[in-house]
Amino acid sequence: MSSHHVVREKQEPALLIANGEGCSFELMGQLLEWSPFVVVLDHAIHRVLDLGIKVDVLLGDFDRNVDFEEIHARQYPLEIIHTPDQDKTDLEKGIEFLIERGFPAVNIVWATGRRADHSLTNMTNIVRYKNQIKCVMLDDYSKIFPLVGTFEKWYAAETPISLIPVGTVTGIATEGLKYNLENESLVLGYRNGNSNESAADGFVKISAQSGDLLIMECWD
Amino acid sequence: MSSHHVVREKQEPALLIANGEGCSFELMGQLLEWSPFVVVLDHAIHRVLDLGIKVDVLLGDFDRNVDFEEIHARQYPLEIIHTPDQDKTDLEKGIEFLIERGFPAVNIVWATGRRADHSLTNMTNIVRYKNQIKCVMLDDYSKIFPLVGTFEKWYAAETPISLIPVGTVTGIATEGLKYNLENESLVLGYRNGNSNESAADGFVKISAQSGDLLIMECWD
Repeated sequence: MSSHHVVREKQEPALLIANGEGCSFELMGQLLEWSPFVVVLDHAIHRVLDLGIKVDVLLGDFDRNVDFEEIHARQYPLEIIHTPDQDKTDLEKGIEFLIERGFPAVNIVWATGRRADHSLTNMTNIVRYKNQIKCVMLDDYSKIFPLVGTFEKWYAAETPISLIPVGTVTGIATEGLKYNLENESLVLGYRNGNSNESAADGFVKISAQSGDLLIMECWD
Repeated sequence: MSSHHVVREKQEPALLIANGEGCSFELMGQLLEWSPFVVVLDHAIHRVLDLGIKVDVLLGDFDRNVDFEEIHARQYPLEIIHTPDQDKTDLEKGIEFLIERGFPAVNIVWATGRRADHSLTNMTNIVRYKNQIKCVMLDDYSKIFPLVGTFEKWYAAETPISLIPVGTVTGIATEGLKYNLENESLVLGYRNGNSNESAADGFVKISAQSGDLLIMECWD
């Protein structure tokens, strides 16, 4: 086997492309660099194929007309998975598909921006999978991921870090932030940990006792 | 007094322009049609003055350099209010300012899009003021407002309506939706009322027993 042959051992994060606002070529290029397993949601497929991206799976309820022949003509082989469940969003179906296939991690793009209902739902729904798969949602201004256990990462000084509770989160303790929390609660809509930042070059540590906390690295 | 003289009795909603992603000229034009009282947050002032919009109040912590002389040269009179409180976002300060000034309602634009932390915080923070001022947040894809008491409005058939709980909302009852709720709970991140719609031409009715519910009218 050639050393250039791509062997995908499901150790690298999969890439899930949703149907919201597109991201920069630069971000997409970074995420494609290691030839991830690529899943595209529903009608995003046309925009994705236009970019020349190699797709492994197309997943959706296909409630509007989809020309599968045309799609296959542009991308073959391509696994097409029909998920008609109306109780779940396409993004939820995509994440659950990757969990079933055994992926340990997924990067998610095109899931934010445009319609506020989809954007807010997509950003917050990733918390429900936090113990099953490592989800990171990215766009041109943001990197979003749920807190699982204790989070610890090195940051350069003054890196913006926001703590957004999905509902109520109790017993939050942080180290290395400009405004540290000591066993405090955050409540969405009432008390957010928005616009915090790393205090100095060094490690930031975040933990919580109960609830779902989103950590967001954002920039203008 | 000429009948064309604008008398502002604070009965029309004020317009609050935040510092996120801009909106279409069409939306801004609609909101400016009745010559609202206009409050601009911090550095958005430059973008707003570039559009030739008449501004009443500029409000912010002005933590980066602001050239007030240049701003006054472009817009005079202009009330400038310095709000250095680091525990509140600019949007919160703007809403609280309008409550203090006695405005019953406010339309909010440029508060969504771009940075996910600001966008999610802005959308959800309006619930805390729901009993003090009527807040409606708008962008090119969305109209967002909190449920207060019982909501009732006529919609054309198949108008998308999403119910997004800011935390947990109990005892939700709806009429006139495609998927009605009967004394049910919604929980952010776990059970959303995303992508519902009006069942037919007619009234939609929404009420809840406890918690903060956002109603979103969104379109692609």
